Amino acid sequence: MKLKCNLRTIALGIGLALSQSVISASSTITTPVPERPAGVTDMVGYAAAPIDTVRVGFIGLGMRGYSAVERFVHIPGTKIIAICDIDTARVTRSEKILSNAGLPAAATYGGEEDSWKALCERPDIDLVYIVTDWKHHAPMAKYAMEQGKHVAIEVPAAMNLDEIWDLIETSERTRKHCMMLENCVYDFFEMNTLNMAQQGLFGEVLHTEGSYIHNLEEFWPYYWNNWRMDYNREHRGDVYPTHGIGPACQLLDIHRGDRMTTLVSMDTKAVNGPAYIEKSTGKAPESFANGDHTMTMIRTANGKTIHIQHDVVTPRPYSRMYQLTGTKGFANKYPSEGYAFEPEQISCDSIPDHENLSAHGFISDAQKQALTERYMHPIIKEVGEVAKKVGGHGGMDYIMDYRMIYCLRNGLPLDMDVYDLAEWCSLIPLSAISIENGSAPVEVPDFTRGAWNKIKGYRHAFKTGK
Amino acid sequence: MKLKCNLRTIALGIGLALSQSVISASSTITTPVPERPAGVTDMVGYAAAPIDTVRVGFIGLGMRGYSAVERFVHIPGTKIIAICDIDTARVTRSEKILSNAGLPAAATYGGEEDSWKALCERPDIDLVYIVTDWKHHAPMAKYAMEQGKHVAIEVPAAMNLDEIWDLIETSERTRKHCMMLENCVYDFFEMNTLNMAQQGLFGEVLHTEGSYIHNLEEFWPYYWNNWRMDYNREHRGDVYPTHGIGPACQLLDIHRGDRMTTLVSMDTKAVNGPAYIEKSTGKAPESFANGDHTMTMIRTANGKTIHIQHDVVTPRPYSRMYQLTGTKGFANKYPSEGYAFEPEQISCDSIPDHENLSAHGFISDAQKQALTERYMHPIIKEVGEVAKKVGGHGGMDYIMDYRMIYCLRNGLPLDMDVYDLAEWCSLIPLSAISIENGSAPVEVPDFTRGAWNKIKGYRHAFKTGK
Repeated sequence: MKLKCNLRTIALGIGLALSQSVISASSTITTPVPERPAGVTDMVGYAAAPIDTVRVGFIGLGMRGYSAVERFVHIPGTKIIAICDIDTARVTRSEKILSNAGLPAAATYGGEEDSWKALCERPDIDLVYIVTDWKHHAPMAKYAMEQGKHVAIEVPAAMNLDEIWDLIETSERTRKHCMMLENCVYDFFEMNTLNMAQQGLFGEVLHTEGSYIHNLEEFWPYYWNNWRMDYNREHRGDVYPTHGIGPACQLLDIHRGDRMTTLVSMDTKAVNGPAYIEKSTGKAPESFANGDHTMTMIRTANGKTIHIQHDVVTPRPYSRMYQLTGTKGFANKYPSEGYAFEPEQISCDSIPDHENLSAHGFISDAQKQALTERYMHPIIKEVGEVAKKVGGHGGMDYIMDYRMIYCLRNGLPLDMDVYDLAEWCSLIPLSAISIENGSAPVEVPDFTRGAWNKIKGYRHAFKTGK
Repeated sequence: MKLKCNLRTIALGIGLALSQSVISASSTITTPVPERPAGVTDMVGYAAAPIDTVRVGFIGLGMRGYSAVERFVHIPGTKIIAICDIDTARVTRSEKILSNAGLPAAATYGGEEDSWKALCERPDIDLVYIVTDWKHHAPMAKYAMEQGKHVAIEVPAAMNLDEIWDLIETSERTRKHCMMLENCVYDFFEMNTLNMAQQGLFGEVLHTEGSYIHNLEEFWPYYWNNWRMDYNREHRGDVYPTHGIGPACQLLDIHRGDRMTTLVSMDTKAVNGPAYIEKSTGKAPESFANGDHTMTMIRTANGKTIHIQHDVVTPRPYSRMYQLTGTKGFANKYPSEGYAFEPEQISCDSIPDHENLSAHGFISDAQKQALTERYMHPIIKEVGEVAKKVGGHGGMDYIMDYRMIYCLRNGLPLDMDVYDLAEWCSLIPLSAISIENGSAPVEVPDFTRGAWNKIKGYRHAFKTGK
């Protein structure tokens, strides 16, 4: 894949600050957009034929895959047909979930590097659910779609632009859903706040923020063959952006009337990353690419902005940030959930107190509770209580699975399509390009190739009559 | 002033993601650094001869200037010699502060555009304290230094690179202190946290954040001739960065062992800014430059990063952010004060619970209180209680004035020098350059011209024996 640098010579007008107008060169790095083959159309708003019972095969039964099988026991209209892991002990462990639930045994695959292919080739599977290490996500998903299966892929579903374009082209060609399992868009505060935004409570949403701030020190030893730390050691940039960018993009109707156009990233040096390797292996790594803290700023075609952060090595409290700034309101999830709206005190006639720095505060807990009840997202109303009981990061994992199956069974567009996957994952390679070029601006490709403005406003699909 | 764009042709290595190495052009915009005149030396660590009683003249007696006169009544070792405002009613109002306190009357100046010059020319003044609109700050400060006076200037002290270099050259040539009145570095949480950082509690500080998020809708009508809204209407970029960047730079020892090297900025479109003008005047402005929300990322020579935000038009709760990420700890002020440190649970042998997203939380309120008492900054210990009684944004304004006078009286370097002023104010023009060039990286000049690594670590000065 080739990068291109557009050099634009433009007139600089630095307001009134500088005494003369000057000429400067500005550059935005672009990456190639492959042409869509003749006869192929986009997947925006695509819905497959309804599937009465969704027959599922799982690849990868480690931390997240095992939990997924546990959840699917509780999801109506599904059948677990096959399970696969390279580690056969994990397969055996997952078989017990089914027997304990009194469900029929699933076909099992494992032991070999390519055992998963036979699972994808089974004619009795509708959906392949992929929960492996990052590097296997995209090749497995491509293969499964080519075998006529819809695919659901853990985050991040693709790690570079070649993989991203490959998944888009495969999904468009095979007309199979290719959904990334981004669970954080289904958390309760996020869903209810999205509903408030869609009802106009915050005015026009101008800016959103998200992050993945999660100290993984305890988790590193439990990833198969150290794949996750290895990935951080080898790659600069925001290598895990989807939990932050997903909710941020849904709030901004990305490829439903707006699209990301430019991205700029910056990172700190790597200190705690290599220190962990030295502490755990007794030997300092020869190199370590990923900075301890990575930031990305993104601008959209409609003049909105997004800010994303990544930090998995410093002792910070867990945060996905989740923040929105609108013309009439504000919402924030971490470190504490809060809403603020246009101050009512503006209409008073007295001279304002410029010593009062507590103005325009968050609404009270009671107001927040009333607001949440009034604007509870219809999906939360429908399955929120069940989701909390089944669990999975407090319920959001269940809601994610439930919604995917609901849409497949009713022949509806899924909540997240292959372009969401592409846009959210593209931060991984694009942030690296920006950082490795001194924080140069990088163009975010239009992954829909012209279809980003076809649908006006992001909405979840529901069956008719609901 | 001319801008220059350095075009570097570099080999791009995008890790393992791309199948071939490619060539791209990257550009960082640079601005000219004037040569220091022969025989002139830098002001890093500079201290003037002690002044027993600091004789002060005030220019500008509006919102902030009036409050400053009120505070000076309480500061030992000072004498208010003269006061000036173009609006003579404001002069009269401030005279009452002195008479009410039983102090001698001050000489008064006002009524004319250049009344302030006569104040600067008085031989019986040591310090000119400038609290006018932004555009008058730098010219007044320059004139006062040329009349042999030390100067203290409200934020932002300079609005463009010409003014910034002018103040540096004047201060270096006249050997007069040129301090910006950045009060937020003196707030209680900031001071105590800075002390903890200097004692090593957070390990190596890698990343800091600051912001000016303050909905000014109530305040716009009270600025003389609408100067503040006019400035926003005419200028893109972060036009008010110092409250955020000041504390962020002190934590990172900027020009005391490290320096800012590259800056990138991005903004949203302007919506609430022009809407306010339309609402208040009945007519929409023909143009409005300043985006509703502006972000800046900065990298330092030592591989640290800073993130700064500006938003004065949306209904967000007040926030200066104030956040630091260190290798061993974390601190955050808004929306709630908190500290976090290396988790103790890492040493336990059990498999970690990846469902637990509340790990690595903030320390308890009791722990926080104990920590604050143990690491209370010596300056807070000395004058914190008095400062709270006198007031001024909860006390920080008093501490700022107190420290400046303390250092002048004891012949010590001031807490903030002309390079702090330059670095913090430089975000105004440099963020505009970046934004007007599609978020291109812009080089932050070394305003010390070679002296940024002379002092190792930022510290407040105290008289010997203390």
